[in-house]
Amino acid sequence: MLDERQLRGWLRQVRTGRRSIASVVRALHTPSASLGFARLDLHRRLRRGLPEVVFCEGKTPEQIIQIAKRLVAHREVVLLTRLSDAAAGQVVSAIPSLRYEPVARMAYWHPGRRISRRGLVLVTSAGTADLPVAEEAVLTLELFGSRAQRLYDVGVAGLHRILGEMPLLQRARAIVVVAGMEGALASVVAGLVRCPVVAVPTSVGYGANFAGIGPLLTMLNACAPGVGVVNIDNGFGAGYLAHVINLGGRS
Amino acid sequence: MLDERQLRGWLRQVRTGRRSIASVVRALHTPSASLGFARLDLHRRLRRGLPEVVFCEGKTPEQIIQIAKRLVAHREVVLLTRLSDAAAGQVVSAIPSLRYEPVARMAYWHPGRRISRRGLVLVTSAGTADLPVAEEAVLTLELFGSRAQRLYDVGVAGLHRILGEMPLLQRARAIVVVAGMEGALASVVAGLVRCPVVAVPTSVGYGANFAGIGPLLTMLNACAPGVGVVNIDNGFGAGYLAHVINLGGRS
Amino acid sequence: MLDERQLRGWLRQVRTGRRSIASVVRALHTPSASLGFARLDLHRRLRRGLPEVVFCEGKTPEQIIQIAKRLVAHREVVLLTRLSDAAAGQVVSAIPSLRYEPVARMAYWHPGRRISRRGLVLVTSAGTADLPVAEEAVLTLELFGSRAQRLYDVGVAGLHRILGEMPLLQRARAIVVVAGMEGALASVVAGLVRCPVVAVPTSVGYGANFAGIGPLLTMLNACAPGVGVVNIDNGFGAGYLAHVINLGGRS
Amino acid sequence: MLDERQLRGWLRQVRTGRRSIASVVRALHTPSASLGFARLDLHRRLRRGLPEVVFCEGKTPEQIIQIAKRLVAHREVVLLTRLSDAAAGQVVSAIPSLRYEPVARMAYWHPGRRISRRGLVLVTSAGTADLPVAEEAVLTLELFGSRAQRLYDVGVAGLHRILGEMPLLQRARAIVVVAGMEGALASVVAGLVRCPVVAVPTSVGYGANFAGIGPLLTMLNACAPGVGVVNIDNGFGAGYLAHVINLGGRS
Amino acid sequence: MLDERQLRGWLRQVRTGRRSIASVVRALHTPSASLGFARLDLHRRLRRGLPEVVFCEGKTPEQIIQIAKRLVAHREVVLLTRLSDAAAGQVVSAIPSLRYEPVARMAYWHPGRRISRRGLVLVTSAGTADLPVAEEAVLTLELFGSRAQRLYDVGVAGLHRILGEMPLLQRARAIVVVAGMEGALASVVAGLVRCPVVAVPTSVGYGANFAGIGPLLTMLNACAPGVGVVNIDNGFGAGYLAHVINLGGRS
Amino acid sequence: MLDERQLRGWLRQVRTGRRSIASVVRALHTPSASLGFARLDLHRRLRRGLPEVVFCEGKTPEQIIQIAKRLVAHREVVLLTRLSDAAAGQVVSAIPSLRYEPVARMAYWHPGRRISRRGLVLVTSAGTADLPVAEEAVLTLELFGSRAQRLYDVGVAGLHRILGEMPLLQRARAIVVVAGMEGALASVVAGLVRCPVVAVPTSVGYGANFAGIGPLLTMLNACAPGVGVVNIDNGFGAGYLAHVINLGGRS
Amino acid sequence: MLDERQLRGWLRQVRTGRRSIASVVRALHTPSASLGFARLDLHRRLRRGLPEVVFCEGKTPEQIIQIAKRLVAHREVVLLTRLSDAAAGQVVSAIPSLRYEPVARMAYWHPGRRISRRGLVLVTSAGTADLPVAEEAVLTLELFGSRAQRLYDVGVAGLHRILGEMPLLQRARAIVVVAGMEGALASVVAGLVRCPVVAVPTSVGYGANFAGIGPLLTMLNACAPGVGVVNIDNGFGAGYLAHVINLGGRS
Amino acid sequence: MLDERQLRGWLRQVRTGRRSIASVVRALHTPSASLGFARLDLHRRLRRGLPEVVFCEGKTPEQIIQIAKRLVAHREVVLLTRLSDAAAGQVVSAIPSLRYEPVARMAYWHPGRRISRRGLVLVTSAGTADLPVAEEAVLTLELFGSRAQRLYDVGVAGLHRILGEMPLLQRARAIVVVAGMEGALASVVAGLVRCPVVAVPTSVGYGANFAGIGPLLTMLNACAPGVGVVNIDNGFGAGYLAHVINLGGRS
Repeated sequence: MLDERQLRGWLRQVRTGRRSIASVVRALHTPSASLGFARLDLHRRLRRGLPEVVFCEGKTPEQIIQIAKRLVAHREVVLLTRLSDAAAGQVVSAIPSLRYEPVARMAYWHPGRRISRRGLVLVTSAGTADLPVAEEAVLTLELFGSRAQRLYDVGVAGLHRILGEMPLLQRARAIVVVAGMEGALASVVAGLVRCPVVAVPTSVGYGANFAGIGPLLTMLNACAPGVGVVNIDNGFGAGYLAHVINLGGRS
Repeated sequence: MLDERQLRGWLRQVRTGRRSIASVVRALHTPSASLGFARLDLHRRLRRGLPEVVFCEGKTPEQIIQIAKRLVAHREVVLLTRLSDAAAGQVVSAIPSLRYEPVARMAYWHPGRRISRRGLVLVTSAGTADLPVAEEAVLTLELFGSRAQRLYDVGVAGLHRILGEMPLLQRARAIVVVAGMEGALASVVAGLVRCPVVAVPTSVGYGANFAGIGPLLTMLNACAPGVGVVNIDNGFGAGYLAHVINLGGRS
Repeated sequence: MLDERQLRGWLRQVRTGRRSIASVVRALHTPSASLGFARLDLHRRLRRGLPEVVFCEGKTPEQIIQIAKRLVAHREVVLLTRLSDAAAGQVVSAIPSLRYEPVARMAYWHPGRRISRRGLVLVTSAGTADLPVAEEAVLTLELFGSRAQRLYDVGVAGLHRILGEMPLLQRARAIVVVAGMEGALASVVAGLVRCPVVAVPTSVGYGANFAGIGPLLTMLNACAPGVGVVNIDNGFGAGYLAHVINLGGRS
Repeated sequence: MLDERQLRGWLRQVRTGRRSIASVVRALHTPSASLGFARLDLHRRLRRGLPEVVFCEGKTPEQIIQIAKRLVAHREVVLLTRLSDAAAGQVVSAIPSLRYEPVARMAYWHPGRRISRRGLVLVTSAGTADLPVAEEAVLTLELFGSRAQRLYDVGVAGLHRILGEMPLLQRARAIVVVAGMEGALASVVAGLVRCPVVAVPTSVGYGANFAGIGPLLTMLNACAPGVGVVNIDNGFGAGYLAHVINLGGRS
Repeated sequence: MLDERQLRGWLRQVRTGRRSIASVVRALHTPSASLGFARLDLHRRLRRGLPEVVFCEGKTPEQIIQIAKRLVAHREVVLLTRLSDAAAGQVVSAIPSLRYEPVARMAYWHPGRRISRRGLVLVTSAGTADLPVAEEAVLTLELFGSRAQRLYDVGVAGLHRILGEMPLLQRARAIVVVAGMEGALASVVAGLVRCPVVAVPTSVGYGANFAGIGPLLTMLNACAPGVGVVNIDNGFGAGYLAHVINLGGRS
Repeated sequence: MLDERQLRGWLRQVRTGRRSIASVVRALHTPSASLGFARLDLHRRLRRGLPEVVFCEGKTPEQIIQIAKRLVAHREVVLLTRLSDAAAGQVVSAIPSLRYEPVARMAYWHPGRRISRRGLVLVTSAGTADLPVAEEAVLTLELFGSRAQRLYDVGVAGLHRILGEMPLLQRARAIVVVAGMEGALASVVAGLVRCPVVAVPTSVGYGANFAGIGPLLTMLNACAPGVGVVNIDNGFGAGYLAHVINLGGRS
Repeated sequence: MLDERQLRGWLRQVRTGRRSIASVVRALHTPSASLGFARLDLHRRLRRGLPEVVFCEGKTPEQIIQIAKRLVAHREVVLLTRLSDAAAGQVVSAIPSLRYEPVARMAYWHPGRRISRRGLVLVTSAGTADLPVAEEAVLTLELFGSRAQRLYDVGVAGLHRILGEMPLLQRARAIVVVAGMEGALASVVAGLVRCPVVAVPTSVGYGANFAGIGPLLTMLNACAPGVGVVNIDNGFGAGYLAHVINLGGRS
Repeated sequence: MLDERQLRGWLRQVRTGRRSIASVVRALHTPSASLGFARLDLHRRLRRGLPEVVFCEGKTPEQIIQIAKRLVAHREVVLLTRLSDAAAGQVVSAIPSLRYEPVARMAYWHPGRRISRRGLVLVTSAGTADLPVAEEAVLTLELFGSRAQRLYDVGVAGLHRILGEMPLLQRARAIVVVAGMEGALASVVAGLVRCPVVAVPTSVGYGANFAGIGPLLTMLNACAPGVGVVNIDNGFGAGYLAHVINLGGRS
């Protein structure tokens, strides 16, 4: 958590008397003292290789705008998730450089001219109703620099739809499987490929889906190994995990 | 619940004075008055086409023996389910004509010389550990008069194992799918066939199987229609349901 | 999954040189390549004997309209389930040949002049509030070609209502039992008949109904065997299963 | 909680100077000061009309013996519930006047010569495996002074067994229904009678019984009103409640 | 289920030839054939001593009006529960003799001039927010002919509020305890009285109330015996059960 | 529960004949008889050191206004929790001296000129979306007389944010940790300090938060001891508990 | 996490050249490098004021012995929780200075001659079966230096038992309430006192106790504020929390 | 699923007449026809890059021995998981080349002389009791060819233990976090690193761990992204997933 180079510099200054002992003690005790508003974790990129992302549920549009403006000012990637249409209207008029994607309920801004995209992550979904979650994963992947390819509506009720895409499945370096109903697609895909599978249960389905618990349990119990599960409806989390698998943390 | 022919007979006897009004009133009020010990539902075969079956958990060996002896005395099929090895020892020495199957934990006796078996029910299981439940279904089917065929260890982690049996799947009049872990096999099979699928979740698997809740939810949420679910580990119930589907209630 | 006759034809053409090896390899790899928009499973009728059905929750009216139009163009049965009144308005004005049933929340279209209905499936419900689910089952049965008969409001709080219909119960080839509250009707009916019972728990009732979990558990635990359970409020699934039981997959 | 007559006496003594103010203050603060060992609630009979009962799970045989001896010394009814065979051996050899019933797992002693039994409570059970809980209810009723009649093995899979006992059902002043599996018997009985029904779910059954949650929900959701539910496997609680209903608290 | 006197009459007519055998056979097969619209259980009063009650959730105003009109025509008590304000408006303008109580969400009509009220049932509630459920119980009791007395806002956070009412508690023949939050009031009341306690958990409280599961479990686990639990928020069910306890089924 | 000094005074008056025995008997039986409307627990401050607080969910604005007016009339602190914006409008126009805080959804009034604040309680939150619950705790603390300091947005995804505040954490006499998502902040904080930690799970997060069950379990399972958990989203309860820890019940 | 005094010393040595910059960098990076075997958190007393405690479930006797020996060697308090009788035999023969308490399933050793005990914590339990958990709390309190007083078997089924101890309840600085069954004792106690209440649900009771979930929910929902809940059966955690409340972290 | 090269060969033989059309049709229909005993998925290595693993719970020692012998005969890696000590004794005496690790409950055999290990996966555990699961992950990683390093007993109750290992954490290509209790370690680690984190909840802890549900929810809700969760206690699944992340499926 300490930037070693900076610490060595400070200590050299202590030795030469150009820096007081008190200032070092203070700095070591409060590594985030200078972060300012809302304790934005601007060091996260240094530590994790990817910037902090803003989960918008439960935040007011004003709070979102202030956080996003600060990120833009630092020329840091802005990624706002779970942003409702209503809030998006206010946020985007305040910060017109943001782009809003209503299906994925995300808004984003990237400081670079264009994002180079590398590797290959496949994002598959079992049904049309899983699209919002799948799109959240796709946008996350693309914004962070992974190449993403969509493969939608390939549920196990019609197996040939997924079996017909074997060559594509075999090329991917990670596969995101988004599925509601019973979530069996994750097991089936994992049984066919060698790369890691990131499974996202969704809250789509009849009664005993129980807001996603049904497919969540299916995916945790997947008889084919190689599956890592993220939270219900958490397309962003799936995209993030698939991205670090795809690029090994090199963003 | 009234045998119409008998009732008409009684009423004719009332009209001719050969039967008292009181005896008819009494008979109509207590249709099971003559059942005797333990209220054995000996009329069940008349009503449902199949005999009563004895669920042995929570019963003492002595109780089981008395019930079974009474059934044998009526020359009715005996089917004892969930019979532990220990209890089976006592029961079979008391009634040597019973045959005990330790894997299925069942003992049975059939009054007929040989049982003719008709139709075709396929019993599939996802893994070797699901065998006791699958065998319970197979024995139930065979004892009641359905032809049963086993297709074991065809879980979705290796799809070609089940896809390679398509001709067999297409011939069955009902398919029992026994699966623990995540239970995805039921969805996959239902997506491939036209006959009804009877799904049995089992309590086999890692932690989040939750004693069968995991595959139970998977099967209830199956995205392919045509699946009827029975209770966790209830191989007998699956065999019974598949039998009445197979033979249309004609045993 | 392979249409054997077609495959033999291709292989004969390979032998005679009229078909290239490459084209066969490509076709075998991608059996669904030519399906076009949204991976509609148009082969489902070939495989399962019944067409694909469109579950409308989570889909936009535009998506529903496009799928339905494509089905009509193939002269395939259209069955839209869980279609809200609002969405139905848009969909039916776009495709006026569709007929909408608001109680069952379904819209449908059949390419044939009239549907011949065979066999007999009884659809029973415990209370008036279970009607939407029961009607969903009835419409599904009738559209696929089963004869369906309604027997509503026969809950176990007044047993004579169901006991008075014994002759009807005995004639059915399958019985759908729709029940909320405690769901005891499924056990009671199954104890009276020889045909298979398809049980549908509904989310109707006081607090401890828990959105259908109460009757779901009742039905899974039914002490009378011969009951197959489908998902909570899933009238379509019940109708589908009862139909394939009734007609043995011959639609 | 204050015995009014005694309080008035004390105040009169205060007025006449025969009692100090301090003693009244102390007595009002500690109404249970004289209870002695283990805070046995010997006043419970005064307050509730029935004595305290000893729940033995989690108590050592020594603790049980000491409590029971103290009750005998006060010539109070002794009722030990959930007493295992092993513990019963020790307890009964220490207090030979206790009588142990192994099926109900209870031991008891009554100070009176014989207990007069009044009213009528019917104790019904769905299956043979529910017997231990049903017997716990019967013994509780009889020890407290209610007349109890057994009606066992009348589950709803064979309705005529319970319908055949209508005259008996109509005579009871309270009915205890003990049922595992799906617990539908409570609804059916409540729909047939005018007296209150006390329902006891049991943990007997296949997987989705979930240690009694299945029948518990069934009974709470019973569509026929007039049912009060007690805890899973709590035969004693059912007997107690049925007793106070039967005799209106007059033991 | 058979009215014995009527049956004897029929049989006498058969003997004398004034009644055909066929008509008796038909009547015995269909005891409810003549019930007409919606299978109203008009025989319920004969069997259970109280009329059928209409649970309005999930029914349309039109359905409710038709049922209520039919009951009024038979001069039977009308009791409509869970009737929303909106539906009540329509129903009451169609049947002006109905009286609507918005707090209890009930409407009712009684054919008699005035209802004599007997016995005494106490209805206690832990907090002001439990009022709608408590009032549902009070109205049910009064309409059926029990004398009901309210004792509200006596939660255990201020024990003296309930302890100060001991004389009243001791006089009641049944006590209804309505409580949300943690539901401890049922245990405390049951520990103080000799009459049966009917406990109703409510869905009022902070997060871990879990829509009433918290107080439901508390009440089922009550360490003081003599408590019968009804469904969450089911004030009607509590009133019904307390009424039959109070008057022993004599309405 | 008895104010000893007053009791001694009454008894002295009995002795001197200035007070009747009857009046003492009545007073001892009904310590809350004179409370009037809604059984307001005005004695709570005597017993618990803090006044009763009004939980507004499920109460009408009229009920809230009457209760608050009565408290103001007694010059008692008024604290209204879970007060919606809509209800607050009505309540505050009826009682203009009340101050409403929309983020915390609380209104309050204090009879004193200014509240002296003592000790130190830290209120930390994991994310911005947990603010309403955290503010509810802060206001409760300040109104009752504890000094509260906010430390927001210090979730464990960026550990340095909390580690940088060690000196502050070490000074507090109690720490409230408000956290949704996975709730890990409570464990981390408890591992760093010696004072008690009050943990509040919130219902903020993706699907498997399950309305707060996720962080609730995390906090109950905290591997660092010294953590007491309150109900989901219960900021008031956390503030109250932290206050009595901070000041040892001396308000 | 940094001992500030030591850091200042190091920095002074850096200034004077007596300590190398590299050694400071290394020490700051690895504050626990010298901890040795099993990463015993020997600094915990410095940070939290209390030593690390050893939870023995899932550890072999050999592992426990090695950890305990190391703690004794550092003259640190040893506290082993959840130590089975079997393991205790081995552990105590290896380290005879340990004292084992079988009811509480704990073994301990204290380096001091005698422990001075301050403050007052009351440990109350609802029933005799809750004793093991209550004793775990008492021993923890006493070993850490709090004065503890037992008040057992005061469940709410006999309220006078707890009301009779009001003076004692009012003197405590913290009260631990241990309760299984429905756990209502926590609410009742909290309603009577001004000090904080630490509630421990136990897994003692009939079926719907659900291994402690019943009383856990009761305690979380307690309508009287001032209650902090710890994990099911976690007597140690309750004792620890009550201790830091009692002594404000000054051990 | 088709080996393209082989298919092209067959088609060329068809063209040249050296292969019959029938044999191609048959082969395409039954790709697994030649698998023999127990449908061992020997093609899994071709498809997934790793061999099939044998989950031993619910299998008899005889079944395990037969499967393992067949794998050895194919010179395929053998990995037996969840193998009890008792079963291991029988299995290892039948196949002495197997090596059994009792802590991890695994037995294995590798056909190669030595396994080259590449990359770096860190396996961290929160407490000593989590060791069996952690060791299962380590052995899986090493057998498949990943380099694994242990970092045990670094729970969040003593944060410096994990913070002191930052350089090691930063070097790993994947990190497995094994944690029971509350499972907060996964969030903390994920907040510190850039590589993917594989989280395994364990069933170790006090009551509200609920056999692993507690840490499972914590991990699914982790506020730091980059975490993929596997099933409770599933060390093998975690090792498998971490391995394919580490080596990109190149074993």
